[in-house]
Amino acid sequence: MAVESSLDVQLIAASQFAVPPGVDWVPDAGATDAEAIVEFAGRACYETFDRPNPHTATNKAYLHHIIDVGHDALLEHATATVYIRGLSRAAGNELLRHRNFSFSQLSQRFVHEGSSEVVLPALIAEDEELRRIFLRAADETRFIYDELLRALEENLAGEPNSLLRRKKARQAARAVLPNATETRFVVTGNYRAWRQFIAARASEHADVEIRSLAVTCLELLRDNAPTLFDDFLISELSDGTKMATSPYVS
Amino acid sequence: MAVESSLDVQLIAASQFAVPPGVDWVPDAGATDAEAIVEFAGRACYETFDRPNPHTATNKAYLHHIIDVGHDALLEHATATVYIRGLSRAAGNELLRHRNFSFSQLSQRFVHEGSSEVVLPALIAEDEELRRIFLRAADETRFIYDELLRALEENLAGEPNSLLRRKKARQAARAVLPNATETRFVVTGNYRAWRQFIAARASEHADVEIRSLAVTCLELLRDNAPTLFDDFLISELSDGTKMATSPYVS
Amino acid sequence: MAVESSLDVQLIAASQFAVPPGVDWVPDAGATDAEAIVEFAGRACYETFDRPNPHTATNKAYLHHIIDVGHDALLEHATATVYIRGLSRAAGNELLRHRNFSFSQLSQRFVHEGSSEVVLPALIAEDEELRRIFLRAADETRFIYDELLRALEENLAGEPNSLLRRKKARQAARAVLPNATETRFVVTGNYRAWRQFIAARASEHADVEIRSLAVTCLELLRDNAPTLFDDFLISELSDGTKMATSPYVS
Amino acid sequence: MAVESSLDVQLIAASQFAVPPGVDWVPDAGATDAEAIVEFAGRACYETFDRPNPHTATNKAYLHHIIDVGHDALLEHATATVYIRGLSRAAGNELLRHRNFSFSQLSQRFVHEGSSEVVLPALIAEDEELRRIFLRAADETRFIYDELLRALEENLAGEPNSLLRRKKARQAARAVLPNATETRFVVTGNYRAWRQFIAARASEHADVEIRSLAVTCLELLRDNAPTLFDDFLISELSDGTKMATSPYVS
Repeated sequence: MAVESSLDVQLIAASQFAVPPGVDWVPDAGATDAEAIVEFAGRACYETFDRPNPHTATNKAYLHHIIDVGHDALLEHATATVYIRGLSRAAGNELLRHRNFSFSQLSQRFVHEGSSEVVLPALIAEDEELRRIFLRAADETRFIYDELLRALEENLAGEPNSLLRRKKARQAARAVLPNATETRFVVTGNYRAWRQFIAARASEHADVEIRSLAVTCLELLRDNAPTLFDDFLISELSDGTKMATSPYVS
Repeated sequence: MAVESSLDVQLIAASQFAVPPGVDWVPDAGATDAEAIVEFAGRACYETFDRPNPHTATNKAYLHHIIDVGHDALLEHATATVYIRGLSRAAGNELLRHRNFSFSQLSQRFVHEGSSEVVLPALIAEDEELRRIFLRAADETRFIYDELLRALEENLAGEPNSLLRRKKARQAARAVLPNATETRFVVTGNYRAWRQFIAARASEHADVEIRSLAVTCLELLRDNAPTLFDDFLISELSDGTKMATSPYVS
Repeated sequence: MAVESSLDVQLIAASQFAVPPGVDWVPDAGATDAEAIVEFAGRACYETFDRPNPHTATNKAYLHHIIDVGHDALLEHATATVYIRGLSRAAGNELLRHRNFSFSQLSQRFVHEGSSEVVLPALIAEDEELRRIFLRAADETRFIYDELLRALEENLAGEPNSLLRRKKARQAARAVLPNATETRFVVTGNYRAWRQFIAARASEHADVEIRSLAVTCLELLRDNAPTLFDDFLISELSDGTKMATSPYVS
Repeated sequence: MAVESSLDVQLIAASQFAVPPGVDWVPDAGATDAEAIVEFAGRACYETFDRPNPHTATNKAYLHHIIDVGHDALLEHATATVYIRGLSRAAGNELLRHRNFSFSQLSQRFVHEGSSEVVLPALIAEDEELRRIFLRAADETRFIYDELLRALEENLAGEPNSLLRRKKARQAARAVLPNATETRFVVTGNYRAWRQFIAARASEHADVEIRSLAVTCLELLRDNAPTLFDDFLISELSDGTKMATSPYVS
């Protein structure tokens, strides 16, 4: 039976910072590690560890200035890694377009035994009839997948390596699996890349599923580096979905 | 009715070269533009336009030396663009992992009307029974796609913008389309990126469909820059498919 | 004697385009190859080779639309390579920050025999007295370079490989050479990268030498793809130097 | 007076890891955070959190396998940031070629007042006579720099903005500063990029200063992720300098 999977994003790694010996500077008590790294890198460019400009003496003011003048390169020094589950292969294909990220994706050579995990588009999930049609189609596709897998393994009986036989059979049989099939990702990016992703995909014009991913990442990363994202405003569209925009991105 | 689509790759753009004024050097008559650019860039690093080393005086010898010593950065100065049709969405997802390429991909907001174009895995295409099962499944999926599309457009009747209504409906309905659905790409890469792609995907261990793409690209680009690929040897595996390897890649 | 070198930029390679078989589309007669490639890639995403939208039927209108809506990824399919001479090492260091470019740089293991080629900052070149001071300093530095080189080669007399001996001596002696030392580059980039470079470095706030390089590249590439740059306006600052800006870049 | 500066590299940030809820896996007690992230990402690709293969059940064995089969993409999920002081501008120019890194560099608009910090090549530093010649040259250059700066500021007296006047003067005057001038960098990279950098620059054929930087980074990062670097062997060359190589890099 087809099992519905829903989006789940967890922060699993992020940069931890320590001031090096020989630098007479202590980050603001309230600054997170990511925020302190970005300020450190900025001050290293001009040796302004003594905070000569009172207007940018606090971490918050310094980072706002960086975003304001567009010195985004400084944001590359802090990174965050998330683990994404419950994403459709279709949205995964869009996510892969963001080449500044590093990706590890669940292989389709691995498939859940006995059931298919699928991610339903919201417009289908919320209509009882369409949901029924969709899940039945997923079940049938899964049935055909199993049938193809069995037949292909038989056809490949001449292949003595059982691991290779199974791999070849799966590679062919997966052709029938739908776009809705669940995929999973480990995604690592620096904060400049995360801002670019959110700017591009949390916008009103993005596909609804990847938009939901982008807004979720924004909420998650905002905990880790509030000041690096406080220019983004999350709002609700007329269809109840969320979007986010910032005056600093186009 | 499901229509079978098969791989088609065409070279649509490549670098054209001209020696700049003030450089006293003429490329070998036999060198292609891509080959001449790479030699030019190499000679520019050491001002050796007078070919002081007789062992690398010809274009062929010069390029072989570059590949031998691993100065691959020089290969980045010549680029080639291909147009790929008849690739499955599954293989397209693998292709997107090659972040050094530039991609434009056929949107799934565009779908052929009235028929579904699918790319059959070789192991399925060559078995009469499995082919029949697969094409029937593709037809049924397409039928459900059309059904979902119609119902979704009805549900979205409140959306006054007909373009947006259709886009939203398609974005949701495409969730049912299979991995085998045909996709198309414009892919641009420099010759270093092309060599990396071919090294990774023409190998015996790669998935059979993307391996076929990699070998096809090798054959195509070899016409455009023979010396930059003549270390690759194309051979046939026991299952009749092709692979390629070079002693210069791992 | 120190020899003054001045900026010289030549286009040495660019993408040449051909419509692939099976695509029923002919680019506008007036479109350059670079312009046609970008339009082709855009139309390939939505299979709009039949130009369904009259507002974007011409190449010019299509490209303006792309730049307007920010589909810059399409600009990655056309590339251009330039050969830069007469750039200072200081400006070269700034150029290297543009990581989307591919670079081959004149090695400092190669040094002009008997004379030093230097790039004078405009503010120094235009003041007779400062120019004299600067050139005399360059001559002295060159004298010390030669002295160090000779002494180092003597110290390395135990090294039997004369090539390696000379290389080691040059690597150490070059430490005394000034920022003004001339360097040369082969630079390859796609049109998206070129636009980003020009946007960042042709701006009023950029260093005067790299600004001059950026404006020169703009003038050169504009010949090769007028429509991809016609949003940039070149103007003159009060000090007589040029700058360029576009409403489409920040 | 010219002040000698010597290489100093400090680790200032690195990825910290936490297993996400819902994943039944605990990393080996001995694994560092970087090592655990890489294993996590690998196991996420095949859902092998239950360690089905006894040969790769330990973190050490798993990472060795990854390096052995070349799944270097997994190494992109852990990052490390270093702060580099005491590097010459010449070596800095070479460092910038590693485009997979993120850089923030000390601006030459900032210059130590009253003294010039220079990085002496080892071959010069270890010869009393050459050292004297070199430091005297650095002093003279610094004297001319100050002279140019003063004259330029006078020439720019018409510029009402004193900050801009000083910036313009410094940009021109710095043309006389030598390659040996000290620069500083904040450099962030993932472990794949760090391995590539070390492989390229810790090799016998690299320039002695950047080789020293590469070996220092290897020693530093090895503390943070021993298993990701234990294929590298550090050895001493006949001239007393260090180099490092691994059988897994070419």
